[in-house]
Order: sequence, then structure tokens, then C-alpha cells
Amino acid sequence: MRIIKPAHFAPSAGNGLLDRRLFLQGGLALGAAQLAAGNVQAAAARPEWMNVPGEPFSHYGQPSQSESEVVRFPSANRALPGNGVSWTPLHRLEGIITPNGLHYERHHNGVPQINPDEHQLLVHGLVRQPAFFSINNLLRYPLRSQICFVECGGNSNAGWNKTPARAEAGYFHGLVSCSEWTGVPLSTVLTEVGIDNTAKWLIADGADAFAMNISIPMEKAMDDAMLALYQNGERLRPENGYPLRLILPGWEGVLNVKWLRALKAADRPIRARNETARYTELLPSGKARMFTFTMDAKSLITSPSGGMVLKQGPGLYQVSGLAWSGRGRIKQVDVSADGGDTWAPAELQEPVLPKAFTRFRIPWQWDGTPAILKSRATDETGYVQPEREQLLAAQGRHGFYHYNAIVTWSVDKAGSVTHVYTAKQEQSGADLGIDAGWD
Amino acid sequence: MRIIKPAHFAPSAGNGLLDRRLFLQGGLALGAAQLAAGNVQAAAARPEWMNVPGEPFSHYGQPSQSESEVVRFPSANRALPGNGVSWTPLHRLEGIITPNGLHYERHHNGVPQINPDEHQLLVHGLVRQPAFFSINNLLRYPLRSQICFVECGGNSNAGWNKTPARAEAGYFHGLVSCSEWTGVPLSTVLTEVGIDNTAKWLIADGADAFAMNISIPMEKAMDDAMLALYQNGERLRPENGYPLRLILPGWEGVLNVKWLRALKAADRPIRARNETARYTELLPSGKARMFTFTMDAKSLITSPSGGMVLKQGPGLYQVSGLAWSGRGRIKQVDVSADGGDTWAPAELQEPVLPKAFTRFRIPWQWDGTPAILKSRATDETGYVQPEREQLLAAQGRHGFYHYNAIVTWSVDKAGSVTHVYTAKQEQSGADLGIDAGWD
Repeated sequence: MRIIKPAHFAPSAGNGLLDRRLFLQGGLALGAAQLAAGNVQAAAARPEWMNVPGEPFSHYGQPSQSESEVVRFPSANRALPGNGVSWTPLHRLEGIITPNGLHYERHHNGVPQINPDEHQLLVHGLVRQPAFFSINNLLRYPLRSQICFVECGGNSNAGWNKTPARAEAGYFHGLVSCSEWTGVPLSTVLTEVGIDNTAKWLIADGADAFAMNISIPMEKAMDDAMLALYQNGERLRPENGYPLRLILPGWEGVLNVKWLRALKAADRPIRARNETARYTELLPSGKARMFTFTMDAKSLITSPSGGMVLKQGPGLYQVSGLAWSGRGRIKQVDVSADGGDTWAPAELQEPVLPKAFTRFRIPWQWDGTPAILKSRATDETGYVQPEREQLLAAQGRHGFYHYNAIVTWSVDKAGSVTHVYTAKQEQSGADLGIDAGWD
Repeated sequence: MRIIKPAHFAPSAGNGLLDRRLFLQGGLALGAAQLAAGNVQAAAARPEWMNVPGEPFSHYGQPSQSESEVVRFPSANRALPGNGVSWTPLHRLEGIITPNGLHYERHHNGVPQINPDEHQLLVHGLVRQPAFFSINNLLRYPLRSQICFVECGGNSNAGWNKTPARAEAGYFHGLVSCSEWTGVPLSTVLTEVGIDNTAKWLIADGADAFAMNISIPMEKAMDDAMLALYQNGERLRPENGYPLRLILPGWEGVLNVKWLRALKAADRPIRARNETARYTELLPSGKARMFTFTMDAKSLITSPSGGMVLKQGPGLYQVSGLAWSGRGRIKQVDVSADGGDTWAPAELQEPVLPKAFTRFRIPWQWDGTPAILKSRATDETGYVQPEREQLLAAQGRHGFYHYNAIVTWSVDKAGSVTHVYTAKQEQSGADLGIDAGWD
């Protein structure tokens, strides 16, 4: 195979970042085994699995046993095992759709086993006509679909730690997943019951043993909120709210109430535990942030990422990652291979959809010396993902939620990738750890 | 709840079809239970599953046990159980993504259990440098993603029957599914080995016990063909070709070779069984069609569809279905409720992507009298899905593959939905049945 010299590749930024269209040109020499023409037939011998009939048809397929390590990583409260999270292995996935079996979980007291024939949605409070909706009622309503992400407000919170967490990318940033959701526009049902003009909030209740409750502004409820019944084509999975959940595109995961059983129109928020004692944080000013609904723009290089090794040595690699914004479409993702001194725009995979994962990719010629990789998302509103120092300066040191700073991966000369902070190492202190704080 | 008279709804076509934007107006009165204000609290009692902690976190989720009937329906050769199909239950799904566990299957001798570390792709024949590519090699290559359908050339073939098949929609038309595929552009690998100018075809071999082989025009191989490694975010499932399959967007399923082990560049097709004795058909002219690669535009109402009953009686329903075309984007889907006398355009759910499922929906006010529902797709090339009579006139009576005629559902006064032909019933004869012909 012809070896192409790096000099043939036009750089797009420092330390080996190349033009994002490079890969269309072929001739990459990425380690395929060359064969002398006379050896082809011998080398193409039938593998053993061609000599026996294969496995039968199945009613519902499962992943290959060879992929058994591609799993959600659970991290729960020891005293209350149903309270915690499980992380989507973003570092092992590609594209923008998260398969249903790997969508992240955040439960406060486990996954209720609900009989859909007995489940109802009560809509009441400041309404003209309170009503119950059965699942069969709702299935008859007009449906719409939207591909969008759901992200826990506490995702990436180990980023607040004084020392860089060492977990793999998905087990650090994987409290976010992206699916095609289908359901009834919430505005349709609210219009049907007749919301009073004085009702500015909607209090949502879940049918889990925690009795989850939280307040949602009426404006969002009447905008793009959805009573979701289907996820990626099929009915919701139990851990994603079967038979009914709220989807609030682009807003903090905790508001996307699973196992939804009631919506109460009210003139003020309910001030539930999860909007006062949790999902809030003290600012440098001494005031606490509350009702921080929108998830800010964020990006993450998933390959190469923490824990991986560039085993093939110096040469050409594809940098691949995800970007998303709760405010709309991703407009641009820039990548740096020199710690942020120079940046090049990555290619954005179509379709680029609002409030959904966007896959970005850019080729990188690694020269075998240490390198620092970063990605930086910009959304269509012009919001730019901050450096960690900027985020800390703005939010202070009492953060736990809404960590969306630029993620930095260090590649050493052996090709090992680790998570680092590029600013001067902070003094050590009491760090959260990635499995703390779920209560 | 206020009952809205049908007269309030502006018709868009005959027999109750309404404007596709109707559902945004609310006030639909679809059977929710009204409550007197004093009864709300009593009626909102906690269900039993709120009284016990829920199920624990899981590494890989599964559907609800209440959805255990949402399965692929296998239909195989009795003498050779690994030869047949399993159908996607399109009538039970929504949106455009097919979950991986429900993607249709077409195998000729079962599903091989392949060790990915021992699997290789051989590229040889009229090339400058024959080469082997391991899966790890390919994973290092540049990836791209595309949401597209794969459809078996034999899908819907019971439509050729003289009497209308009675299977549910998915078990009649469900040899088509739609996923986000991610892999290496085939052109990248072909450029790397250097295709000779005399090579006009690529012969693809599968690593199954059938030793699947088939010929692909080089022009398609160099256009949008993909060496797929991921499906809907995760690595391929075994029944979808793990660890490597071809994806040829918009082309007949049999060409999308699973468990791909070899590609041989050649100056002519190999004339394999599956391009001569099968996947061809006799035309009225006496000549046989071969190499009918592109899947023509098609649509199907999935709800209501065969076997369903409009249990709630006369009133408002949403007609929902799928359209797709191997030539590009769906431009329009028209729906008729009066057997084709009048048509109204359905709403197309964004995103409308080329060579992918497009979900269409339109509201329908059923008056309780018998009705005939049809859908008709038009793609961006101007191709219009034919009526059955047109298809038969063009292709004759020896068809088995590429049945894409308009599908007709009859709704009787009891609300029962059945598949019918609207032309004068043909004389009975030897029908295929939906599970014949898999050999």
C-alpha cells in the first residue's frame, strides 16, 4: 500500500489537524494487510462459521456477545440502590441515535413496573375541566416526532472537581442521550382542558416510589413539550418512563418527568425538593441559581478519549465527537490539537437538528509527540462553549449542575489518552467523584 | 368535555379527511374522562407501584413486558429453517427509526456467529493492490453516518396475489426498516486498493453458511455505498451483519450483503443465483427483468391498518403512515378516504431525509359508514406510486419482487380494517401466501 507522506496533507490548524474533507481523497494507508496476488485465494479460506447453518430468526434481537462490554455503567446510592444513575457509554457509540437499551438512567427510587391499562394522566388545577387521560386515549391523539437529546442537569459534574476525573468519556459525560421521541404535543391536551389565564406553572408528578414532582413554566409546556409514548420507533422502555413521560426538548433532564401521572396547572411553582434543595447552586454573589432550565451548548470528543490508546502509533486518525445545545442547532464545532492555541472547524454530519446530538469529525495526523485535544461548540444563537476557567469564574466553586466546559484530552507519546485540566493544576480538595451526590 | 361538531372542521378531501394542521387547534374530545372538581383528589390516589421501591438500574435495557407482542414475525422455509424472513411490526411502531431489535431479517442459511477478531474483509480482483482489512483497521478509518431504509426486493410480494392478503400491515409490508448506519465510505477503501479502469462490477461475498454472493455496479460502489459498522449508535447486531455489512442506500436489500468478507472487482457480474434465478421476473414481453436495483417510491398507512378496529366509534382519528423512495426524498404523500376519488396532502414529519422513511400524518373524521383509505407517495424525481392496476399492467402477472402499488384499507361500519383491492376482484388462482417463496 502506498504510504502518503504527511506533507501531502494540508493542515487546517496546529499539531496535525487536517482539512475536514481530507478523508474523501482515499489513499490513507491505515494498516490494511497487503497481499501478493498469488496468495489471495489461499488467504480467502472459508472461516469455520461458514461450515454450519447459522442461528435461527429471532422475535427481538440482541447485541453480539462480543459487544458485551458496551453497557450502561450504574452508579447508585449505597443506602438506596434505586437512587442513582447509569451512564451511556458514549465513547463506544457512533452516529447521533442512542439505542434504547443504552439510554442513560436517572432514578430516585427505582423503575416502577406499571400496568399501562391502569395508568392514567390526570390534568387538573387551574383548568376549565379537569380530566383523566388513559394511555389508549392518548394513543388516539395526533402524534408528532422529534429527534432530541435529554441531559441530566448533573451530567459531567466531576468537571467541578479540583483534580481531573479519570473515568472514560461516557462514564463521565454520558448522562445525556439522543432519541427520536414520538408523542402528543402537550399543548394539545392543555388546550383541551382549558388552562386558566392565571396558571403560569404546571406541576408534574411521576408514578414512581419517590413520587417525583417538579414545576414547569406554562410557556414551555405550550411550546414544544411532548407527552412521549414512543422512543426510537417502539413504545418507551420502563426505565425511560413507560408508559408515558414528558419530553421538554433542550431542558434539564429532571423536568422530563418519567411515568407521568398528573399535571396540575398553578399560579406558582411548587418549590419541590428537586427545584430548591437540588438542581440549584450557590453563586459567587451568595445567591443561588434556581430554575436553570436550558442546557447550554456543549461538546465532547468521544474518540480518541480518556482510557483509549492510539495503538497503531503515529499516523492518521479521525477525531469524532458529539455536540448539542438546548437552545437550538449546533452551528460550528472547532477542534484543537495543541491545547487551544489553534483551532480548525470539524465537519458536521447531516442532519444537523435543533436540540439534538450533532456528530462532528475531523482528521488528525498524530506525529507521535504529546498532544492536547479539545473541542468547542458554538450554537445558532452564537453561544460559545466556555473554557473551564471561564465557567469557574462565572459560577464559582459551589457548582454541581450544568457543567458544560470544554473537555481536554491529553495524548502522551505512547498514545495513552487521559483527561486533564490545561490551567495550572488546582489545589487538591474534597472532590465529588463521579458516583457521589446522587441523593 | 366540549364536543366539537364535524362541521367545525374544514375538509381537505372527501369522506372526512381534514386539514393536516387541524390537530394543532386542540379541543378534540377524544374520550378523556371528565371529572367533577370535588372528585379530583380521590381519583388521583396513588397506584400500587408507588408503594414499593422500583426495579434496579440495568446495564442494557429491554422493552416492557406489557409490549411482548411487539415482535418480528418469522416466516421460514420448513425444510431449511435458517432460510426465510422476519417481519418488522410496522403497524405497532411510530416515527421513522426502527429499533435494532425489530429490524427485519432476510437470511438464506441463518445468522453466523462471527468472532470479530478473526473476521477480515478481502478486497481483490481487478485492483492495483489486493488487501485484507481487519475490523480494527476499518474502525480507524473515517466514518460517516446516514439514516436510510433497507428494503427486501420481495417485500409486499403478497400484493401480487389474486386475492388480497389479510396479514397485519407489518407482516405484509414489513421487510423494510430504517436505521442510522455509520461506517466507512466504500469509495475510500476502493480508492486505497486502486480499482482498475476495466472493473465495472464488484462481487460481494458474505460469511454465512449460504455463502451469499452478488454483483454490484462499480458506479454505486463509488457513490454512496458504505461499509457499515454501527446501527443506531451501537455496533451491528448479529442478524444485521455483525461485524460488517454493506449498505447501499435506496437499493434492493439483497445487495446490502451482511457479514461481508470479500469484494472482488470484475469486468462483468458473477451471475449468481440471487441475480438470475431469483430477484428477477418475467415481463409481459417475455423478457425477464434483471438488476432491478432501485427501490421505487412506496407508502403505507400503518394506522389504521389491517386487523385494527376503530373501537371508539365514529369521530376523529389520526391517519399515520410511512413513505420512502430509493431515488431520494419523499416530496408529497396524498391520502384518500373515498377509495381514490379525492385526495388530500398529508403532513410530512421533519426531518425528511433522502432514501429514508418519512412519517406522514393527516386527521380524519370518520362518520361511521364504510370507507376506503389509501396513500400515494411522490418522490423528488416526480415518480408517483402506482395504483395496483397500473403496476400489473406494466409488470404482468409473473411478479414476485418490487411490489410497490398503493395499499388499500377498507373500514367497515363496525370500524374493522381489512386489506382490499379496489379493482374488480380478480379470479382466484394459486396465490403465494405471505410465507411462501423464501428459498
